[in-house]
Amino acid sequence: MRWIKFTTGGKTRHGIVEDDRIIETSGDMFGEWSKTSATHALADVKIEIPVWPPTFYCIGMNYVKHLTEAANARGEVPAVPDRPQVGYRAHNALIAHDEDVVIPRGATEKIHYEGELAVVIGKKAKHLSEADAMSCVFGYTIGNDVSERTWQRADQGLWRAKNADTFKPMGPWIETEADVEKMQTTVCVNGKQTVSFRTNDMLFKIPQFIAEMTRYFTLWPGDVIWMGTDGQSPDIKAGDVVEIGISGVGTLRNRFVAEQT
Amino acid sequence: MRWIKFTTGGKTRHGIVEDDRIIETSGDMFGEWSKTSATHALADVKIEIPVWPPTFYCIGMNYVKHLTEAANARGEVPAVPDRPQVGYRAHNALIAHDEDVVIPRGATEKIHYEGELAVVIGKKAKHLSEADAMSCVFGYTIGNDVSERTWQRADQGLWRAKNADTFKPMGPWIETEADVEKMQTTVCVNGKQTVSFRTNDMLFKIPQFIAEMTRYFTLWPGDVIWMGTDGQSPDIKAGDVVEIGISGVGTLRNRFVAEQT
Repeated sequence: MRWIKFTTGGKTRHGIVEDDRIIETSGDMFGEWSKTSATHALADVKIEIPVWPPTFYCIGMNYVKHLTEAANARGEVPAVPDRPQVGYRAHNALIAHDEDVVIPRGATEKIHYEGELAVVIGKKAKHLSEADAMSCVFGYTIGNDVSERTWQRADQGLWRAKNADTFKPMGPWIETEADVEKMQTTVCVNGKQTVSFRTNDMLFKIPQFIAEMTRYFTLWPGDVIWMGTDGQSPDIKAGDVVEIGISGVGTLRNRFVAEQT
Repeated sequence: MRWIKFTTGGKTRHGIVEDDRIIETSGDMFGEWSKTSATHALADVKIEIPVWPPTFYCIGMNYVKHLTEAANARGEVPAVPDRPQVGYRAHNALIAHDEDVVIPRGATEKIHYEGELAVVIGKKAKHLSEADAMSCVFGYTIGNDVSERTWQRADQGLWRAKNADTFKPMGPWIETEADVEKMQTTVCVNGKQTVSFRTNDMLFKIPQFIAEMTRYFTLWPGDVIWMGTDGQSPDIKAGDVVEIGISGVGTLRNRFVAEQT
């Protein structure tokens, strides 16, 4: 099932996508809900951020190829994590499918995409074992972990580099029935493929992260965990359109534009 | 004015504290609101987290004495930041005044408090100058940036060390009329003072941070910025009660307990 949050006629609602139509729902997608009689053409609505996460988790350095290539580019020896370690992103940076990524004034040309699987939590969870970890997962969406690499090297932490306004596109919807093992992540810039990798080629996989996180954290319905990325991005410039497709989930598309002075 | 969020009779509301009573309000504390005829004794209500921040900002290393002492304790040379740099904390960890900080299983004895002034944003803001920066500030509350120092050294990032469930007490209310220049932060453990410092002895002050942050980030009503801490904490153990008082704002009190096995 594909859960979408959308606006039409000035009202924002949830619904289920079937082919090119949305069946409007009432209630709570994580709890009690039902279909209504209202439907909309997918093409006629504005797609919103699919869920506003209580906590916005993000995993770095979770694909060996990506972290090796990134270290090589810096002339460093890659530091491969020996256990799951958890990072975060900031809510101010979230935007929806088809909204514009605004390249801030003062940014260098080193603007990169990172195509990531985003796990959406559906149930309150603490102290889950790896075997039980997937029981709290509601579904999957897609994130673009946009990064300004010059700031990433210059700053303590990732504040400007990854959390500038509009740097965290997420969407277009939440797919509840996809099989992670079968997913392939493919990124296209202006319609031309730049990278493709097996989504589940993760150093530490989703159950390992959920088990480790819930030793210390309560996961809540709507929390998202972005799972990291593989491969390297070319420099993205104003006017470029980046599409991140994950098979079985969907495609997240955003245009990059320059901040107006 | 002191804005409080509280629960009584199973309902959670906002109100204004006057002496030992709460005058219930209706509307939006950041926008249109009015007093109602309902009042409650402060002692009769459960105090809630005063605001749920859209983004939860937190500044590290913003008091020279604290970062020098911390570096000395590690046998390192202190690295004093040369410009404002922004960090974050995680929403899962937030608790209210008088709720318990739960020391997780597996934590070492190196559990420390950090008493911090928390700035509450009241207006949407971007590209503010230092001169205009304070125009977006709604008021002040108090944060305890509880830390597990062994994890802080062992991990990449601050995930377990500072964001374990219950590690971020905030409250008890938001004071809108306090003067930062006159504030003194005083921490007591089990009623005995352990540290006291001038709250505004910050390396980079609130307007400098807001000006730098709003170059890249939109600040939204309810966002909080924890401003860092001074001094060193003794090791805090289960049963201890930590009170962080900031003159003109209030006192945030929390008991520490061990996680039940």
